[in-house]
Order: sequence, then C-alpha cells, then structure tokens
Amino acid sequence: MMDSLAATERLSRVFADESVVQAMLDFEAALARVEARAGLIPESAAEAITRSATAEAFDAAELTRLSLRAGTPAIPLVRMLTERVRDLDAQAAGFVHWGATSQDVVDTALVLLLQQCRPVLESDHKRVVLALWRLSEEHADTVMLGRTLLQPAPPVTFGLKAAGWLAAVKRGWVRVASRFDQSLYLQFGGASGTLAALADHGVAVSQALATELGVPCPDAPWHGHRDRLAALMAALSIYIGSLGKMALDLALLQQFEIGEIAEPGGDGRGGSSTMPNKRNPTGCMLAVAAAKRTPGLLANFIAGMLQEHERGSGGWQAEWASVEGIIQAAGVSLESMAEVLEGVRVNSVRMRQNIEATRGAVFAEKAMIMLAPEIGRDAAHQAVAEALPDIPGLEVPEDYLGSAEAFRRRLLGSEE
Amino acid sequence: MMDSLAATERLSRVFADESVVQAMLDFEAALARVEARAGLIPESAAEAITRSATAEAFDAAELTRLSLRAGTPAIPLVRMLTERVRDLDAQAAGFVHWGATSQDVVDTALVLLLQQCRPVLESDHKRVVLALWRLSEEHADTVMLGRTLLQPAPPVTFGLKAAGWLAAVKRGWVRVASRFDQSLYLQFGGASGTLAALADHGVAVSQALATELGVPCPDAPWHGHRDRLAALMAALSIYIGSLGKMALDLALLQQFEIGEIAEPGGDGRGGSSTMPNKRNPTGCMLAVAAAKRTPGLLANFIAGMLQEHERGSGGWQAEWASVEGIIQAAGVSLESMAEVLEGVRVNSVRMRQNIEATRGAVFAEKAMIMLAPEIGRDAAHQAVAEALPDIPGLEVPEDYLGSAEAFRRRLLGSEE
Amino acid sequence: MMDSLAATERLSRVFADESVVQAMLDFEAALARVEARAGLIPESAAEAITRSATAEAFDAAELTRLSLRAGTPAIPLVRMLTERVRDLDAQAAGFVHWGATSQDVVDTALVLLLQQCRPVLESDHKRVVLALWRLSEEHADTVMLGRTLLQPAPPVTFGLKAAGWLAAVKRGWVRVASRFDQSLYLQFGGASGTLAALADHGVAVSQALATELGVPCPDAPWHGHRDRLAALMAALSIYIGSLGKMALDLALLQQFEIGEIAEPGGDGRGGSSTMPNKRNPTGCMLAVAAAKRTPGLLANFIAGMLQEHERGSGGWQAEWASVEGIIQAAGVSLESMAEVLEGVRVNSVRMRQNIEATRGAVFAEKAMIMLAPEIGRDAAHQAVAEALPDIPGLEVPEDYLGSAEAFRRRLLGSEE
Amino acid sequence: MMDSLAATERLSRVFADESVVQAMLDFEAALARVEARAGLIPESAAEAITRSATAEAFDAAELTRLSLRAGTPAIPLVRMLTERVRDLDAQAAGFVHWGATSQDVVDTALVLLLQQCRPVLESDHKRVVLALWRLSEEHADTVMLGRTLLQPAPPVTFGLKAAGWLAAVKRGWVRVASRFDQSLYLQFGGASGTLAALADHGVAVSQALATELGVPCPDAPWHGHRDRLAALMAALSIYIGSLGKMALDLALLQQFEIGEIAEPGGDGRGGSSTMPNKRNPTGCMLAVAAAKRTPGLLANFIAGMLQEHERGSGGWQAEWASVEGIIQAAGVSLESMAEVLEGVRVNSVRMRQNIEATRGAVFAEKAMIMLAPEIGRDAAHQAVAEALPDIPGLEVPEDYLGSAEAFRRRLLGSEE
Repeated sequence: MMDSLAATERLSRVFADESVVQAMLDFEAALARVEARAGLIPESAAEAITRSATAEAFDAAELTRLSLRAGTPAIPLVRMLTERVRDLDAQAAGFVHWGATSQDVVDTALVLLLQQCRPVLESDHKRVVLALWRLSEEHADTVMLGRTLLQPAPPVTFGLKAAGWLAAVKRGWVRVASRFDQSLYLQFGGASGTLAALADHGVAVSQALATELGVPCPDAPWHGHRDRLAALMAALSIYIGSLGKMALDLALLQQFEIGEIAEPGGDGRGGSSTMPNKRNPTGCMLAVAAAKRTPGLLANFIAGMLQEHERGSGGWQAEWASVEGIIQAAGVSLESMAEVLEGVRVNSVRMRQNIEATRGAVFAEKAMIMLAPEIGRDAAHQAVAEALPDIPGLEVPEDYLGSAEAFRRRLLGSEE
Repeated sequence: MMDSLAATERLSRVFADESVVQAMLDFEAALARVEARAGLIPESAAEAITRSATAEAFDAAELTRLSLRAGTPAIPLVRMLTERVRDLDAQAAGFVHWGATSQDVVDTALVLLLQQCRPVLESDHKRVVLALWRLSEEHADTVMLGRTLLQPAPPVTFGLKAAGWLAAVKRGWVRVASRFDQSLYLQFGGASGTLAALADHGVAVSQALATELGVPCPDAPWHGHRDRLAALMAALSIYIGSLGKMALDLALLQQFEIGEIAEPGGDGRGGSSTMPNKRNPTGCMLAVAAAKRTPGLLANFIAGMLQEHERGSGGWQAEWASVEGIIQAAGVSLESMAEVLEGVRVNSVRMRQNIEATRGAVFAEKAMIMLAPEIGRDAAHQAVAEALPDIPGLEVPEDYLGSAEAFRRRLLGSEE
Repeated sequence: MMDSLAATERLSRVFADESVVQAMLDFEAALARVEARAGLIPESAAEAITRSATAEAFDAAELTRLSLRAGTPAIPLVRMLTERVRDLDAQAAGFVHWGATSQDVVDTALVLLLQQCRPVLESDHKRVVLALWRLSEEHADTVMLGRTLLQPAPPVTFGLKAAGWLAAVKRGWVRVASRFDQSLYLQFGGASGTLAALADHGVAVSQALATELGVPCPDAPWHGHRDRLAALMAALSIYIGSLGKMALDLALLQQFEIGEIAEPGGDGRGGSSTMPNKRNPTGCMLAVAAAKRTPGLLANFIAGMLQEHERGSGGWQAEWASVEGIIQAAGVSLESMAEVLEGVRVNSVRMRQNIEATRGAVFAEKAMIMLAPEIGRDAAHQAVAEALPDIPGLEVPEDYLGSAEAFRRRLLGSEE
Repeated sequence: MMDSLAATERLSRVFADESVVQAMLDFEAALARVEARAGLIPESAAEAITRSATAEAFDAAELTRLSLRAGTPAIPLVRMLTERVRDLDAQAAGFVHWGATSQDVVDTALVLLLQQCRPVLESDHKRVVLALWRLSEEHADTVMLGRTLLQPAPPVTFGLKAAGWLAAVKRGWVRVASRFDQSLYLQFGGASGTLAALADHGVAVSQALATELGVPCPDAPWHGHRDRLAALMAALSIYIGSLGKMALDLALLQQFEIGEIAEPGGDGRGGSSTMPNKRNPTGCMLAVAAAKRTPGLLANFIAGMLQEHERGSGGWQAEWASVEGIIQAAGVSLESMAEVLEGVRVNSVRMRQNIEATRGAVFAEKAMIMLAPEIGRDAAHQAVAEALPDIPGLEVPEDYLGSAEAFRRRLLGSEE
C-alpha cells in the first residue's frame, strides 16, 4: 500500500521477492554450468546446482531477515542453496558459488532484473510517442496561447506544443536506450576483482558466463566503479523529468478556468471522494509525482559513487532502493501518460476563446515589431504598452505564428 | 528482498499493507463515532462502520491496484468499506466518510503510523545512548591518536571520542522527539479544508476526532502546508547523519592496519562469502548505507513542499516513499549501531602502538608551542617540521591531552 | 552576474571578501586578547595582532588563490597576518593563532557571518508576517474558489488562504530562530579538539573567547559534528519551502485566465523584453526559483555530515557553498515576497465570477451531503454527478463556508 | 573567499561578470548582423549594435542589481545596450534585440560560456588520463592488498587499481564530451518560441545566427525543454563522482597507518596550520569535496525540469547556480587530481609489508578453493577460518593474482 502510487504491476513483478531470488539463483546456476564446461568443477555439481536453483523453494521472508544480518542477500542465499544442493549430491555442495563473491551475485542479479524492465518501459514509451505524433499532426493548425511565466504570450499551435514534448521524450529515450545498452554488464570478479580463485581461467569463464546469461562481458569487474549504472539512472531521471514537464503542462491546461484539454476518465481514474462531478488530472498528477520522487534518488546514487577500494562499505549497499525507485517512477510516469495522451480531448474552441479574451495583448510583440522601424523599438515598446488595453479581441492572423509549423515539422522529423 | 538492507522487521510491520489499511479504517471508524455523538449521523451507522473497519477483511492487492487508478488509496478504500457496511446496514452505508476528503484519511493514517514508529526508534536510541555512555566512562583514560584529514593528530581519548558521538546523538534525538511532538496532527478538513459539509460543527468534530484517535488537533487543516512533516523528516535525516558519522569513524578505526576497534560478530553478522576469516564492519556499513539513502529523500520531500492551493497535484502524492524511506533508514541505522556499540571491543594496546608509530610527530603542535615563545611561532613551526622525523617513539605525557577530559565530562553532562 | 537572481545586496555584503576576511581576523584578534589576559601570550602581542587584523590590508584575490592551494583559507590568512604583525612587533609574530587550528578560524568566522545574516532575514520576515496579517483580516469575507489538484473545489475565503500561508511562515521562522539560537557556537579546539597547546587553560580561554566574540560557548569543540549547522540549514530550507508554496499559489492565481490577484509592478519589476504590456509574476517567480535551488543544497550538507574522526577530509570543506546558497535563497525569497505581499491587488469580483463560472459544480459536496441521509452517500454521489452539469451559476450561501472563518482566526492566533 | 575551495581561476574567468556580459552582448551583436544580412534591419543598425556590444562599457554591479529587479539579466542589458546604441545612431536603437526574447540571450550566453569551459576541463582530463596510464604501466607488477568493506582482501596490483580508475575516468569523459556535443545549441525563439516577429524568416535567421556564433542550430527553440542541459550536467556529475572515488581511495591509502601512497606537496599544498610536519591529502580532499557538492546541484537541476509551457516561472531561473557549481566542481576536481597523479609517490615496500602483516589471511579464498574439491566448499570455508590466524606471513605466489594483469590490459585498451 505504501508504494501504491509509486509502482506499476508489471514492474513490481520484476522486483517481487521470487523474481529477485531467481535472478540471483540464475547467476549461481549459470556459473556452475560454465565452470563445469571449463573443467573447473564436476559436471554433476553443475547439474545439481542448476536443479536446486529454483526460487520457489526458498523462503524469501527468512532470506530477507538473514540478509540484513549478513549485510548482503548473497551470503544467506549461498548457504541455503548449498544446503539444497547437498540434499541432491553431497559432493556438489562443495562447488556452489565457486570463485564468486557476494557482489558478483547481487550486481549480476540487478543487471538481469533491469534487463527485464527495459521492454516494459519501451512498450509504453512507444505508446507515448505514437500518441504525441498523432496529436501533433492532428493539431498542426490548432492555434492556442503561448504562455510564458504563466502569462499569455503570442500564439503557438497545439501541434507545435505536442511536437516539443515528443522531441524531448524521443531524445530522452535515445539516452535511456543507449544507457541500457552500455550499463548492464556481467559482474564477476571474485573476492578482489581478480578472479584469483580461477587462476588463469578468469577471462574465459567470464566471457562464457556472460554469454550464458545473455549479458555483455565488461573489460574487467566493476565492483567499485558505478559510473555505468549511474549513467542509466541519470538518463532515466531526465526522461522522467521530460515526462513530468509534459504532465505539468497538461495539468495546467486542464485547470477549469483554462479548460483547453481534458484527460480521459477511464476505469476508476480521476474521481474525487467528496466531489461527485470533479475530474482530477490524475494521470498527469501521477507523472508529476514520479518526477518529484526521482531527483533525490539520483542524487543519492551519485553521492554513493564514492565507494572505497575494491568494494565499498555503505555506498554500494545503498543503491538498490534508488535503482528500484527510479525505474518504478519511470514505469508509473510512462503508463500514466500513455493513457492520458491516447485519450486526451483537445478543446480548440476554448483555445481560441482564451486568445480572444486577451483582447490583443498577445499580439503586442508583433505590433511593436511593426511600429519599431518607424519610431524605434523602445518607443514602440512604450506605445504598445499604453495602447493595448483598449484593443478588442482579434482573430490570429495566419502569419502571426511565425515559424511554428516549420519548427513543428523539424521536431517531428528529428533523428537526434 | 529489494529492501532487505533498508528496512527493519519491526518497522516493516508498521508499514505492512494490513497495518496501513487499518490506520485508514481507524480514521473512518473514529470519524463515524464522533459524528454520531455529535448527532450528525445515526448511532447505528457508526456502529456498522466501526464493525466493518477491520483490515483483514480487505483485499490489499486489489486496493493497491485500484489506488494507482484513483491516484489515492482513499477512494477505493471508502468504496470497499461502504460495500461492507451496506451488507450490515444498508442505511449506514450512506454515512461512510461523512464530510471527509481523501487526504484526511491518508494524512491521518500516516500520522497514526508514524506515532507507532516512535517507540520503536526510541528504544534503540536509548540503547545507543547507554552504550556510548559506558564506553565513554570506561575509556576516559584510553589514549588514542586524534585524526584530522585522515592523518594523525595530537592524541585524544576514546572516552572523549565516544562522548562526542553521544552528545551528537542526544542532540539529534532531542530534535527528533520535539518534531514528533509538533508534527503529527490530525488531518480533517473536507473537500477544501473548511469542513463545509459539517456546517458549524467543524471545529468541535475535529477536536473530538483528534481525542478519539489520540492525536493533537491543529489550528486548521494542513492539506497544502507540509512544513511540520518536513521538519520531522529533517530532524530524522540529521539524526541519521550523526549516526552515520559515528559508523564511519568506527569502520575506519576497524581497518586492519589501524585495528583499534572490532565490532561484534553476532549471529550471521560480518562474514564474507569468499573469505572465511574476514570480519566485515557490517553493522557500521548498514548505518553508513542508511545515511547515504537519506539526503536525497529529504530533498525530494522539501522540493515537494510547493503544493498548489488547497491540495497539491503531485507534490503531496510523492511524499509517502520519502517518509517511509527516511523512517526505515533511521530504524536500520539505530538497530545496527545499538548492536555494534553494545559489543564493540576496544584495543587500547593497539591505540598506544599507533601513537608510538608516529615517532612523536603528533606532538609537533605541543613542541612548537613550547619553542615558540623563544623563537616565534613561525620559526618554531619550521624548526619542528625539520626536527621531527628523527624523534623516536614517545610516551604521551599526561598534560598533552589538554582539555580532553574536561570536554568529555561537559559533553556527557550536556542537557542541550 | 551568474548569481544575480540568487543573491540580495544586503546578504552579499555579509559574504563579500572583505567581510569574510574580517570575520576570520576578528577571531584571531579576539583570541590574542583573551590569551593575553590569561597570561598565555604577552599583552604587546595581543595589541599588535589586534592592530594588524584589519581586512582592508589583505589582498583577497591572492588569499583566494592561496586558499585553494592550501585547502583552507586559514593557512594563508595566518601567514599573511603573521607578516603584518612582524612589521609592527617581531616578537608578537610568534603568538599569532596561538593554540588554534584552521577549522577554529573558519568555523567561527562562518558563525559570525551567519549571525550578521539573521537580522537581515528577520526584518523581511516581519514585513511578510504583517502584510499577510493585513491581507487575512481585510479579506476575511472575500469568498473564492478552493482549488484541489488544480481543479475547483468548494469555496474558501482569501482571508483563510492568507492565514494558512501566515501560520506556515510563522512556524517556519520559529524553527529558524530557534536554530539560530542553538546552532551558532564558538569553534575553538586546536589541532585535535583538545586544546592541548593550552594545557589546562582550554576551557577558561574558550569561555573568554566566546564572550569576547559575542557567541555562545559549546560544551566542547564540534569540528567533526555538524548536526547543529545542519539543523539551521534544514530549518531555513523548510521556511523557503513554505514561502515557495505561497509564491506558487500567488503565481497560479495571477494566471491571466484566473486573474484573482496581481503582484505589484514596482521599479523595474515584472516586465518583458518582448511584450510591452505583459506583467510577469516576477516576485513570485524569484521565490519559487529560490525554493528550487535549496533542497539539493540541503541534501549536500546532510550527506556531508559523515566527516571522518576529529576533522573530515572533504565533507567539511564542501559546506560553505551550501550554507551561502541556502541563506541567500532565504534572503531573495523573503525580500521578493515582502514586496509582493505589501502591494498585491486582490480582485474579489473576479474571484466571485470564477465561482459562478463553475455553475454550481463546487457545491456538489454540499448537495451530496444534503441528499445523502435520504438515499445514501454513494447514491447521492452518483445523483449529483449526473445532475450538476445543468445547474446554473449560484451565489455562495453563507454557511457553505463551513469552518473557514473559525480556522482563519485560529491560524492568526496560533502561537505554535 | 566563500568559493575559494570550489572554483578554479581559469573557470572563474569564464564566469566573471565581464565575460558573462560579453557573451550576452555577443548574442545581440550577432543577431543584429545576421538580421541585417537578411534585410530585416538596416546594416547601419547592425554596425552600431556591434560597436556598442563591448562588455567593459557596462556597469556590471548596476546590471546585477537591475537583473534581480527584472527577474532576468536580459531586460536591463537590452535597455543599457539600447542607450549606448542610441548615442551612436538614434535610428539603430530601434533594432536592438530584434525578434528575440530574454531567454534567447540568457540561454545562448550560457551555451557560449559552457563552450569556453570545455577545453579547460579537457586539458586537465588529458593530464589525468596520461598520469594514470603511466602509473598503471609502471605498477603492473606492484602487488598490494585488495580491500573490500575496508578490510584486507586477496591481493591486486596497483597497476590494476590505476587501470580501473583510468577506465572509469575515460568512460566519464566520453559521456561528458558527447553531451557537450549534443547539449549546447543556439537558443532563439522570440516571445513564444515561434519567432513570430520574423514572419517566415525564422528558420533561416536561426541557422545564420547559429553559424555566426559557432554553435549548432536545434530543430526548434528549447525554452521549456531542458533535457539536453540536464544530460550534460548529469554526465559531469558522474565524471566528478568517478574522480571522487579515486580521490577517496588515494586519501585512504595515504592514511599514516597504511602509508602506501603519498600525494605530492607542491607550492602551498598539504600543510597544517598547527602541525608543522603533517602532510594532508589536500588534493584528494578537494576532489572529494567537489564530489560532495555535486549530487544535490544535479538534483536541483533535474527537479527544475518541470518548467511550465513555453517558458517556466522558477525552474529555469534556478538553473544558473547549479550549472556553475557543477562545472566548477569538475574543474577543481580535475585540476587537483591531475596534480596529485602527476606527483604521487607509490610505496611498494609498504604495500608488501601490509600484505605480510595479514599473516596469510588474504589467501584464505585461495586456500579454501584448493581444499574444497577434497572436502567441499563449505567445510573448507570452516577449516580455513580456523586455521588461518596461525599462518605466518607469506609471499604472494604469482598465480594468486588471477586475472589481474589480463583485466588491467583490457581496461587500458578499452575503447568503450
């Protein structure tokens, strides 16, 4: 319940106890198999370990309790796994976790879990992109007020506005995707990151293990170097920030007094416990809330990069909460905004009324620019300031939109 | 599992789904009872609501799912509660949540949960204080190196060092306790914070409700004003910071090459999955990790204070994760450090050896001060710098400790 | 220029080079005087040091350059001061900085500078309080929409809204003032915090020095314990957050489409470089910007509390930027909001029009409450949701304001 | 003075008042020239504007004061520039700032300043890379303790350790450089980002202006979309984090009791005001402090991304302090670590002594692995734990280093 607004069902399945335990067990089983193939441990041990490495057989509550005692989930997990293997094959028990260290298990498990999150996020990202594209195309000519410092400014189009959101979201995902590609490496280094226990088999076993697990193999273990994960967290945080900016814009446009858009109501969404007819901008609110939970988590992660020597004492162990929080924020934000954008109603009549209500004030820049060649820009600035309050509502002349459409098309076509 | 290093069993019970749901139901039931007493709703309705308000009858998973849809747990909870009440008494169903708004339920529930956390934290705080007091008294004369910028400095006593930690922890708890006293108020304001639905009964019902729930009644609802909670979060964060400083000091003293203290091993603690004889400073590490998870959560909370008008759209809804994270960090840090301090072994022989190994260098300040009246402070600075590398190991003359013992006693006696 | 929106003239004078240097020199001169009185150094030395300790004689640019080399401003400052003293009295040069360490100078200087900031902040705080009080009293009966999740909610009064801001600001200052009282202590501990160089004169000299400088004397030096400063920074950050919430509310009310308030224009304020007649909410914007610069600075300060042993290596040296940034944010926010609140125009006609434009929707809660006893709360919720879109604009019946006025008066009278 | 530990001379020149003003004037002058070429304003106006756009003629203190009033430096700057132009050519004064908005000036100026910072950072980055490369090659065979959770672990080489730092720093710079390439675009959009004042010349003038200023031209103005700058800030923060990790490792290795490295003393560096012979790890401390000032600034920037509509009210205006703080932190960290790494002394004798002092404990993993095939891994774990305390000091057998050298070479060769 405490996380109910901060987690999606799909991502919560990835981070559920059984899933996390299975990811750690997958590491142990794959390690045993590749070591058996390399002749470092008996084939029979690898078989027994692989057969024992099924999460449903582990007591997650007990494991959680012991993890806090040990300061890492890996120590009790390896002990429990060893007991299970011993039941199958007493000799095999001696080969569990061969040459690995706690952090190898924990970091690689995290990498495997993050890999599972990627398609979940990507599918909603694609919905957001498609919905924004359609909105931008459909509203290429829908004129509305620009707004700066929360005050009316010369008109823009809703198509341009949507294109701006779209381009930011696309740039954001390009960064996220590139960080997913470049951040999620196998962790395998043994006690000090030298794989000393494997003598000169270290590099070969690493590569085989990476292949077995379907993750890339890094140049070397990265126990104390967290920059790659930090870069993924930063990319996600910035992406969440761009979604949050869009959500804030939409929530502001949805204010009753502005009324230019309405987010869709859908199943259980947007109601009020006291006001029967109120429509809250719930989807946008969830995305804004996600953006407000993220920056401090990122700060914690980056501050935590100062990890001592070959394995840190505190910085590393603080990471999981930040990683899960940021990924879940991305998930909630994306899921909410995909739904909002696919169903948002745009009130173009109200948009035009809101322009007219300014009684020409937002054309002041244009008027000044037209007057300026005659009397100078600053005199024009003064003259327009005095004259404008009396100008009645105006239609928006077509060419007052400047490069709005040109910019819109460039943004849609951007491959940056 | 994801939270295994970041949560204690006792606090996790407070934040478990059933406990959270019960806190919300306690609000609804108490509200019904005081409203019945005030003649606003029928007595029979209050009875039916109270009887229905038992968390174990609610499907927490479904509630979690619906909360994300609604953007608040209160809407589906009220709906489910209403259904349960209707089964008992159809007419009573019409009086559930009478005059309240979602945020009244959610905020008051949070307040009730935080109240439950206080004694959990306080009991470990007392253990920490007592253990530090004993260490300080026992080691009033245990001389050890001072260390500044991680380099040896003139000697201090371990008793003074422990007294410094103690005084910081005591100051920290004074702030935390005062914020617990001044932050946890009833939330009850109805849709806009005016209790409009209760006509002129608002203030009286508020006070009765506060009494019923055992929480103080504020001057007015505080839906959009989060400064009190922020002050509690800040006090906890600073307290966690002081515990973290102590933990870092202890972990550094425990480095093999320094070896001046050893934290206790205890059940499952401090081992390594690869190095059989390694003793990790696990308790200290957990407290350092807690201190590294906290600052960003506090930043998120304070950045989230900019909540719009009578109820914010995003800032408020982002709070829970920060609140739970900070409280749990305090819990893990306290529980870990209480255990460390109650069992820590102090190696006073090693402390003296480490002083002797500096071969007098740490007496340089004293030597300079003694020389200076003759030849000037800066000439003495120069002379000592040149002479010292050749001075052999020295005993620490008693009066070289300056005011260490005076300061120690003042710190122990501090009532600040 | 880079700080032009983030600093006030009055506070910038406190943090100007000459002022900072003078604060450090004040420490050195006061130290010499009390040590002379205690017979630890010659009277003549104290005189020469006091006469030399005038900031305008120091080259601040050179000092800045050397500070980065030394990792602390104190080392080059003491060297320069010693040279100046030597010119007056060669023997006296040997008694500069007697028994003190770099951090004693730097921390005490910071404390002296923060003391100077307090009245600057307090004078603007008083303006804010007075202006809010007047607004609340004047608009006790000015009815306006409540707004929750940025949507219309049952009416409140502007007087209640102002009282809510006022109470938060008052609570905020109570915390700030109490932290100013309890955070700003003399720092004087010598190399390791034991005042070893002063033999058994340490406590007495500390107390005399504190008196000489007009700051309280702590139980013991606090080189590695930063919790008191952290508590002051946190109190300021929360105060800035409450000002930011008020500023955001005012900026939102000032949106053209809502138009319920207008911040005053005043000398050079609120203009646009392109739109002659635009009135930007510049004062509110500055306070919102201040609130957005603060949370991360506080997080940095608290994360930096993990300072090693008797003097940290990095955490301490990172503090100044955070302290200055937070104090300046408070200064800008207060100065801006004082001006806004003293001149804000409240458009009560527009407030009423905005209620009427909802065509009764915001009375839905009340209507539901009136229907509910007959047909049940949830059936009423449904009925009202269907009926409301067709209800024409309504006047606000007086008793629909619930406890608004009672809450307002309690908030004004709050002594919490 | 307040920034003395947080700013380098070279970067401070970039952010000095005159430099900042000149960057803004460069925008105005370039704009006038390209508009003249496009026939939008008279050639004579462009000439007069260009001749007037020299920063030394502007009163920076007055500009700073007026900027706070206006809420932006651009408004008073344009006014002052207009006055200067008028003195040369009255008609030209009417064409200053033609079609631009405040944010165009301010953002483009920031972009120009950041471009100037890049080579400053890059030159120190190259020194760091070269120094680390040499250390790694020179110490490929220098065996030392691995250290995990601050306790001894199986041996590594200093060459591997240096290679790990090097690879992280190189990865960090690849990200920083790619963000410099992709973040620093022209800002030019006029009042609402449509360049309405330029009719259909907007895109062409934008491209010409970008060329004139030597910055890339974006698809469209990005007034409200701050993701690119955020990505640069994040890349810098992560880079600073990797430098900070290295600095912390070096400071820890430099502890007197470990004594494996010593940072160079150099001009004014590393002294103590009280202890004549103390060598502080000043360079490392400055880099650690930089890493502690950064995460919160990044959090502020990312939280500030939620900027309303076409130009935000608060989020944007809060950015400058974060940007300058992060860039300066990078500058201080790089400058300090370049000096440290170029002069660091490595004490390989002490490294070996520290291994021997563990009396074989760090070979426990290896011993266990050797025993395990006979008696099982967990029995071996137990046996080694009991036996090890009695094993005398051992030489490090060559093959106990596992893949240390293979990993080192891969890290040096990494092109990631």
